[in-house]
Amino acid sequence: MNYSSAFIPTLREVPADAVIASHRLMFRAGLLRKLANGLFTYLPLGLRSFRKVEQIIRDEMNAAGALEIKPSVVVPAELWKESGRWDAMGESLLRVKNRLDNDFVVSPTAEEAFTATVRDELSSYRQLPVNLYQINTKFRDEIRPRYGVMRGREFTMKDAYSWHADDKSLDETYTAMGRAYRRIFKRCGLSVIPVKADSGAMGGSGSEEFMVESEVGDNTLILCKKCDYAANVEKADCASDYSKETGTNTPPYEKIDTPNIKTIDELCTFLKTEPKNFIKTLIYRAVNVELDLSSAPGCSKLDRKKPSTDAPEVYPVAYFAVAIRGDLDVNEVKLASILKASEAALATDSDVERLTGAPVGFAGPVGLANLPLIIDNTVTGMSNAVTGALAKDLHYKNVSYERDFEAWIVEDIRTVKAGDNCSVCGGELYTKMGNELGHIFKLGYKYTKSMNVSYLDENGKSQIPTMGCYGIGVDRTLASVIEEHNDEAGIVWPMSIAPYHVIIVPIKYDGEAKTAADKLAGELANNGIEVLLDDRGERPGVKFNDADLLGIPFRVVIGDKGLAASPAQIEIKRRNEKENRNVDLDKAAAELTEKIREELAQLNA
Amino acid sequence: MNYSSAFIPTLREVPADAVIASHRLMFRAGLLRKLANGLFTYLPLGLRSFRKVEQIIRDEMNAAGALEIKPSVVVPAELWKESGRWDAMGESLLRVKNRLDNDFVVSPTAEEAFTATVRDELSSYRQLPVNLYQINTKFRDEIRPRYGVMRGREFTMKDAYSWHADDKSLDETYTAMGRAYRRIFKRCGLSVIPVKADSGAMGGSGSEEFMVESEVGDNTLILCKKCDYAANVEKADCASDYSKETGTNTPPYEKIDTPNIKTIDELCTFLKTEPKNFIKTLIYRAVNVELDLSSAPGCSKLDRKKPSTDAPEVYPVAYFAVAIRGDLDVNEVKLASILKASEAALATDSDVERLTGAPVGFAGPVGLANLPLIIDNTVTGMSNAVTGALAKDLHYKNVSYERDFEAWIVEDIRTVKAGDNCSVCGGELYTKMGNELGHIFKLGYKYTKSMNVSYLDENGKSQIPTMGCYGIGVDRTLASVIEEHNDEAGIVWPMSIAPYHVIIVPIKYDGEAKTAADKLAGELANNGIEVLLDDRGERPGVKFNDADLLGIPFRVVIGDKGLAASPAQIEIKRRNEKENRNVDLDKAAAELTEKIREELAQLNA
Repeated sequence: MNYSSAFIPTLREVPADAVIASHRLMFRAGLLRKLANGLFTYLPLGLRSFRKVEQIIRDEMNAAGALEIKPSVVVPAELWKESGRWDAMGESLLRVKNRLDNDFVVSPTAEEAFTATVRDELSSYRQLPVNLYQINTKFRDEIRPRYGVMRGREFTMKDAYSWHADDKSLDETYTAMGRAYRRIFKRCGLSVIPVKADSGAMGGSGSEEFMVESEVGDNTLILCKKCDYAANVEKADCASDYSKETGTNTPPYEKIDTPNIKTIDELCTFLKTEPKNFIKTLIYRAVNVELDLSSAPGCSKLDRKKPSTDAPEVYPVAYFAVAIRGDLDVNEVKLASILKASEAALATDSDVERLTGAPVGFAGPVGLANLPLIIDNTVTGMSNAVTGALAKDLHYKNVSYERDFEAWIVEDIRTVKAGDNCSVCGGELYTKMGNELGHIFKLGYKYTKSMNVSYLDENGKSQIPTMGCYGIGVDRTLASVIEEHNDEAGIVWPMSIAPYHVIIVPIKYDGEAKTAADKLAGELANNGIEVLLDDRGERPGVKFNDADLLGIPFRVVIGDKGLAASPAQIEIKRRNEKENRNVDLDKAAAELTEKIREELAQLNA
Repeated sequence: MNYSSAFIPTLREVPADAVIASHRLMFRAGLLRKLANGLFTYLPLGLRSFRKVEQIIRDEMNAAGALEIKPSVVVPAELWKESGRWDAMGESLLRVKNRLDNDFVVSPTAEEAFTATVRDELSSYRQLPVNLYQINTKFRDEIRPRYGVMRGREFTMKDAYSWHADDKSLDETYTAMGRAYRRIFKRCGLSVIPVKADSGAMGGSGSEEFMVESEVGDNTLILCKKCDYAANVEKADCASDYSKETGTNTPPYEKIDTPNIKTIDELCTFLKTEPKNFIKTLIYRAVNVELDLSSAPGCSKLDRKKPSTDAPEVYPVAYFAVAIRGDLDVNEVKLASILKASEAALATDSDVERLTGAPVGFAGPVGLANLPLIIDNTVTGMSNAVTGALAKDLHYKNVSYERDFEAWIVEDIRTVKAGDNCSVCGGELYTKMGNELGHIFKLGYKYTKSMNVSYLDENGKSQIPTMGCYGIGVDRTLASVIEEHNDEAGIVWPMSIAPYHVIIVPIKYDGEAKTAADKLAGELANNGIEVLLDDRGERPGVKFNDADLLGIPFRVVIGDKGLAASPAQIEIKRRNEKENRNVDLDKAAAELTEKIREELAQLNA
């Protein structure tokens, strides 16, 4: 391909809103343009790399036994009503009415479309497992799209869904997908961090996210300095740093006046003590709680409801007291998971006053009668602790767990933080910000139950299959490759994703240099090497800068001086190295071909 | 690929709404399923063939110098407002509002997105021509989707757009695209009829449609029995079958009473004459007429308006009298094209009465003062004709063109029909119904003007580029391959589009037959041949029927009896032939590979 025909509009200027390297470089190197906020056009060079990412994903999905299908992007709302997500999804779901006033969804994911397709064809256990995927357009109406294609409105996603007769079969496919994902990212030249993850709004459990480090990442990752423990902070746990003290020498608890003292810091100063000696008690409001509360304190009058015929009964709203050691924070995702709730968030000030009889800042576990109390494991190790006393300007001291109060639930609900110790090896934990490129998880029966999927087992009995779900963002993966592989001059593509393997830059595209450049380009093309030939009448400096910006792995410079040598010489430079090397012109094609094939083989190994 | 893992749910039953072969067979052979009216899921087998069509299109577009890009499918309404199509397109345009209440379009075509992308990058004549394409999802909110993917709501289209400094350059690209299209359809094994076409709502002129014959086609094609003339009826012309008679021996025209006679047939009986001796005069209402009417009869008071800043002035509504020989019909597309109007349709009865002073059925050209008269060429040859007399129950006879009335415009506005003579060779014309698979046309300046695209020419002067536009429906092309290649047993794939090249059917997938089948499948796969191995425990008859239904070009049957022969034998059957042939097992892979490569080479030649 000749540069002058390749429509590569490079830019010196950087778009004002481009704050991360991939966003800047995709615009500067002529890979991408913006149509509107969060909507983009891939230009020819960008699309070449995009298609390579797609193809690597497709190869590995096929190799893992998944089958590609293609449902429509616009799907009928009926399917989303069946699954319950028409109501459950918020405004990020793009809803459309057509000319007949029918409702449609511009798919953000495709659990419904895939499940509906399989449901109609599934009859016997002999058909299971089924693992289907698509690589297709998705839309999520992001309220604040940014970072280029890293968080766009329209994007391309590979999403796979599998159906199984039992958990063992789901485990096998889940494991195979995890292996395929590791291979995909390796082949793209990406360092990913696979982390344990809560599956969040998707439901289900057993889930792994594939993260790349990013200063603008959406996720906080907890990693161990000693072992390979890695988890999303929403799911991370840590080694226990508490032990149950025997209460023999603890004096009884007593009231202390704490006038005008509201925060733990103020209280520490006042009492000359540390936060870890406090039992922090917070009031949470949870929504759609599936956990049975019939025996929970203060909950006897709560009504249970069925949101839809097939959905389980839930308490639409319920309140909880949550106690944790004063130096720690409550992890709301863990809390919601324990409660089987769709959301758990701090109650409003007025709710706190109504439920505890005291203003915010004075809640405590002692004497709390009308709320279920959930305590973090750390609280079980505490005695002689300070707590709120359920009255304004009043605290208790010398409070001990079990002696002075009991909990309804004891669980791990702490937010792990840097400096905590690894639950696996005891090593020190640290944090990174990360972006999610892929996610595999066991969905279980959420969709197969709500959408009435069944099959006949070996005994002719109707059964519901269990499901897995596996996604990769194609655009994000491409952008992340650039995030990881760039320098101040531009992109530094891994061979597998580079839009071209070689850029040939004749100092002047004329005379002998032209002949040599055309010949070399032809030889390389015959070997299956992808070549961009800079045929422009630009100064060499401009061409070299563009070659660096575009990030093509090998640059070949052909000049009259080198050609005049005997034997004729050209210069080869690897994009990620500083030095040129002179190579005999007539050996160049063979040498380049060999090196490129080697690199590709290594990446794909 | 093993059949049992390939998710191929074949059907004995045919969906009730499937009236054409491709629709029936895509469902029966497990290529496609329905998600909603006009929305489908391609299953694995269907997607394999779909991707082959895509890849052939991509190959040929690349070979013709077009560059692939990928704009978003959902695009901002602003671009469609710029081009004027936000208002001009009817309800088939799917419009969406997002959470911020911004308007978007789910793209039915992409003139706007492409033009906006090029506009921002174009500065110099040196960048031209540019030819960009995409193969991407489109949506058209069909009021009555039917015939499976032949007329769906969501579909995949290859659409290319080119920009040029002059008509010569546009001609070159237009010609290259025409060549590429012919190659694409040939490689898909399709017989297409390239026809001259009016570009209709798209605007512009110079246009060719690639049609396939279809009994349920949207288009009427006019073809010549003697030469290769082919045109859409909307655009077809024919040899002249009139000549101007000299008026020396025509008596003056005179009134005749025609009480209660309204139709030409009644009049023929009454006057004992034939329709071709009548001048049929019809009143048309045209919308958005760009033609200058300032000197046209009855139009002096009409107001011209600019629908938008950049759009040309138009008359929002204007009326015309249109006269044609009584045995012919007016072609409304030709009429609209002459008037440069977006639409021309028969006026209502009340409009006719108001404008002609007579009820419907008595319009005529003589004495018509307040309407511009447009006559078909045929009328110029008429003397002694019968016409309406602009009064109830009254006609004229002996009316002659020029002597008794004059026309404002004389043009070809007739609808050509079977039996007319070819304008090229004089041969007899006949008609076929056809479906459009592809369309190439010269758009001209419609979008580059309305969307303010410009570049600097060699003299540094700002110029507006001219545009071409080239589309192919991927789904329609695939369905048309099946329409052309099927028999009562199922699909008969051309090698280039077949989902697999070979289906291996062991009589029983067990013992020696299993060993031989696996070995042959492996050898073929090593040669790059795509193999489906029927490993199911079904009866041979079921497997043979499915193999025929699926339409895989080569069927290999492996049975114990053949394997026991010396040397071991298998049966090879071409899907489009009746007879089996016995082939030595150890020569089968080589023979099949050679035949398949030959066929592919022929199709791709």
